[in-house]
Amino acid sequence: MKEKFDRLMDILKDASNLGNAAAVLSWDQQTYMPPGGAEARAEQLATLSKISHQMMTSEESAKLTMDLEPWISTLDPESIEALSYKRLRHEFDKMIKIPTELIVTFAKAQGLSSNAWVKARNESNYELFRPHLQEIVDLMKEMITYLGYKKRPYDALLDMNEPGLVTDEILPVFQQLKDGLVPLVKYCCAKDNQPSDAILHGDFPEKAQWDCFTEIVRTIGFDFNRGRQDATEHPFTTSFSANDVRITNHIAPEFLASGLFGIIHEAGHGMYEQGIPVEYEHLPIGGTSSAGVHESQSLLWENVVGRSLPFWQHFYPVLQKHFPDNRNLKNNNAEAFYRAINKVTPSLIRIDADEVTYNLHIFLRFELELEIFEGNLDLKDLPEIWNERMYSYLGIRPRKDSEGVLQDIHWSEGMFGYFPSYTLGHVLSVQLYELALQEHPSIPDEIAAGQFGTLLRWLNKNVHAHAGKYDSRELIRRIAGGEIKAEPYLNYIQKKYHAIY
Amino acid sequence: MKEKFDRLMDILKDASNLGNAAAVLSWDQQTYMPPGGAEARAEQLATLSKISHQMMTSEESAKLTMDLEPWISTLDPESIEALSYKRLRHEFDKMIKIPTELIVTFAKAQGLSSNAWVKARNESNYELFRPHLQEIVDLMKEMITYLGYKKRPYDALLDMNEPGLVTDEILPVFQQLKDGLVPLVKYCCAKDNQPSDAILHGDFPEKAQWDCFTEIVRTIGFDFNRGRQDATEHPFTTSFSANDVRITNHIAPEFLASGLFGIIHEAGHGMYEQGIPVEYEHLPIGGTSSAGVHESQSLLWENVVGRSLPFWQHFYPVLQKHFPDNRNLKNNNAEAFYRAINKVTPSLIRIDADEVTYNLHIFLRFELELEIFEGNLDLKDLPEIWNERMYSYLGIRPRKDSEGVLQDIHWSEGMFGYFPSYTLGHVLSVQLYELALQEHPSIPDEIAAGQFGTLLRWLNKNVHAHAGKYDSRELIRRIAGGEIKAEPYLNYIQKKYHAIY
Repeated sequence: MKEKFDRLMDILKDASNLGNAAAVLSWDQQTYMPPGGAEARAEQLATLSKISHQMMTSEESAKLTMDLEPWISTLDPESIEALSYKRLRHEFDKMIKIPTELIVTFAKAQGLSSNAWVKARNESNYELFRPHLQEIVDLMKEMITYLGYKKRPYDALLDMNEPGLVTDEILPVFQQLKDGLVPLVKYCCAKDNQPSDAILHGDFPEKAQWDCFTEIVRTIGFDFNRGRQDATEHPFTTSFSANDVRITNHIAPEFLASGLFGIIHEAGHGMYEQGIPVEYEHLPIGGTSSAGVHESQSLLWENVVGRSLPFWQHFYPVLQKHFPDNRNLKNNNAEAFYRAINKVTPSLIRIDADEVTYNLHIFLRFELELEIFEGNLDLKDLPEIWNERMYSYLGIRPRKDSEGVLQDIHWSEGMFGYFPSYTLGHVLSVQLYELALQEHPSIPDEIAAGQFGTLLRWLNKNVHAHAGKYDSRELIRRIAGGEIKAEPYLNYIQKKYHAIY
Repeated sequence: MKEKFDRLMDILKDASNLGNAAAVLSWDQQTYMPPGGAEARAEQLATLSKISHQMMTSEESAKLTMDLEPWISTLDPESIEALSYKRLRHEFDKMIKIPTELIVTFAKAQGLSSNAWVKARNESNYELFRPHLQEIVDLMKEMITYLGYKKRPYDALLDMNEPGLVTDEILPVFQQLKDGLVPLVKYCCAKDNQPSDAILHGDFPEKAQWDCFTEIVRTIGFDFNRGRQDATEHPFTTSFSANDVRITNHIAPEFLASGLFGIIHEAGHGMYEQGIPVEYEHLPIGGTSSAGVHESQSLLWENVVGRSLPFWQHFYPVLQKHFPDNRNLKNNNAEAFYRAINKVTPSLIRIDADEVTYNLHIFLRFELELEIFEGNLDLKDLPEIWNERMYSYLGIRPRKDSEGVLQDIHWSEGMFGYFPSYTLGHVLSVQLYELALQEHPSIPDEIAAGQFGTLLRWLNKNVHAHAGKYDSRELIRRIAGGEIKAEPYLNYIQKKYHAIY
């Protein structure tokens, strides 16, 4: 049976290499490809994905997968073989449950819907998008009937991004967060002593920003021997191997915070990818845990570390060094900078949101998704409900759909069930950081001294080294001996923002 | 039968897309990949090449290829189907003639031999390399017996790079060139009024060089909407589609000619690739004609156009504009620059050679290859024979093997039969340019006015549009109604250098 297992892993290794090749092509598409290359690139990617899909779903792969089941059940469930099989089976079962015809129909609908969304958003006209959204939702509902679910239809959507997590498990956590955050936003906004963020605006030469950010991410631990940074319209992280991780950044020449926190965020993702043990590289457990755990790594570095006072006690002089002509930076200090980067401002656009308001944007989407897939929400009413709820959570109301229901690409592509991973990432980032602190109380002092090795090594050992062995819940259970909880995050954010405001 | 043909083309299309994907990966490897990525990249490339090879040599492909033969013979030999089949069959027959075992043995020997060559060249010690060279030669001889040949063993080697050309056809052309060039070198070197190339040396800021070269290659017709330029250690051109062609350059901060003629050369290759009709893209005729024809395009632009006086009548002011602080450029003119870039200096290293001496470096290698594969040359004597011949052709003698027999990578990788394509490229570049002139006598005046459209369109129509339909001999027969000839090149070079010297 071991030979059958090895043969299956060999097939998956080829598929994994094809997947990594496709990732290189996508990276090039977004960084350097000339405009004329788009059509040929789409063909190359389609061929890679077709061949990889054929490999994974071939008769041989299916037979090996089924043949191995009894043997796997005799193994230690903690063995590499058993864990690999479990993760593979989770993907494979989903893949064979949905009829190919439905996948093809869905892919076509996705294409049309994405185009319609772009047009609708440009014209701020939801009605142009609604029929496509309706079709995507109907197809997703059909998929849910094939996929099945534990208790609630939304569980099937959640399972695609957070394997193992169910709706009834995250609902109370999210409710508790909401109950804490809505009053906190009101509290911050009502205060007289609002921080000023003038220091973040002005003239920041692109080359100086690039050099400064490179120094920062190198210092916190992103390994440039095993990765690089490039410029793109939208920042992202991609990995072709733990030894070749690419992060990208978009620099705004007149607003420092955009590129700065963008690249710390991506470096957080990147250090997770660089921490995956190479010996798992092509196994089903060779990826990362889940979307939420991935987001926890980027947010831990961006917010918990990168928006903390000790961080700027070290890096503020570095910033001053890179922008010697900036008087605002010269005449201020780390404390003022810390207040500026933590200013709370309710805004209509999720991706511009600060740490306190961000998750309210997520709850709004999460609740609407639940009502679409489990309630009676008529898509006709979606913009109005969106706007009302935005007002009740953040006290502001979109004037047009492009500032409201049309702002995100996710739904146009059928990415329902993804938004909760963002909030899960926030929650886990604090839960993990506090566990690291318990073991190493010196971490904040080290950060203030520009030393990040203890924290990164803790994350390497407790999160990265597990690669894709465990889902998010199991990961927290193993590290913390407990569950995913709202309290650490709520305590952290209350304490931080009551000190600032 | 048409369905069988289409099915075979579909398989080849997938293989072609995999090949283009591999080309993207190789491009990234040489431009941007961080050092750590090497191992994973080698694995990705190996998987792509394995799958593509499996596709091409699958039972289905082999059966389709054989089944189609009688049908193809009933078609117009000028039809896309017949031409595609002919080219495919040429590759396919070679592929199935050589036993897989020999290919594997050869690949291993190549790896060892390349490593040994690097070490031997660094230490300038031919004896370290000789046993590996012997093994490569022995394996190549074995391959020749499997491949077969028309008349002479060397024909089999030539056929890999210049399909259809045979040794006895190029020998008299090469002999004629040698008889003209050896005295021309002597004539130039004996003259008193040697041109000075001081203007090419000095301080040329890299950014200014980059911008200047970009303006030049854009003006001559390289399309940056369907291509781009990047920096690499060794310049090269690669294509992922006619609409996505990448050229690279290596800039020497203190020597202008290196990057300048490097990028014009690559742009010549690049414009050929950009001129391939997209409708042939994935067919067996969707590539280019041969190594020699490819080289004719780069050399036409680099030498015949780029080292001509009209070219610099237009571009000398552009050069002055980009290097406003360079006094040498300011105080000189196009004529002086023209003399500088055409200075003849016998040198030991092929890749540093000027237009007049270059082909003598090739004849030396070509003659040695003939003696190795058809004569009795003992590899022990190779360095001594090399050095003697170098003296008789160029009047200089290597002091060590790294300046002599160890300078090229080609033989260490088994690339025998490739060097003649370089000379063929020189010969064809002039033959083609003169045909263009016959049709459009205004071309030199247009070049002096910075207009390159007529020449590029002529090349597009007469060379590029044929893609891989014809081999080099057939291409010349169709355009010129005659044969590959030495006279045009000899006349061109005699006239040009008798005017300069």
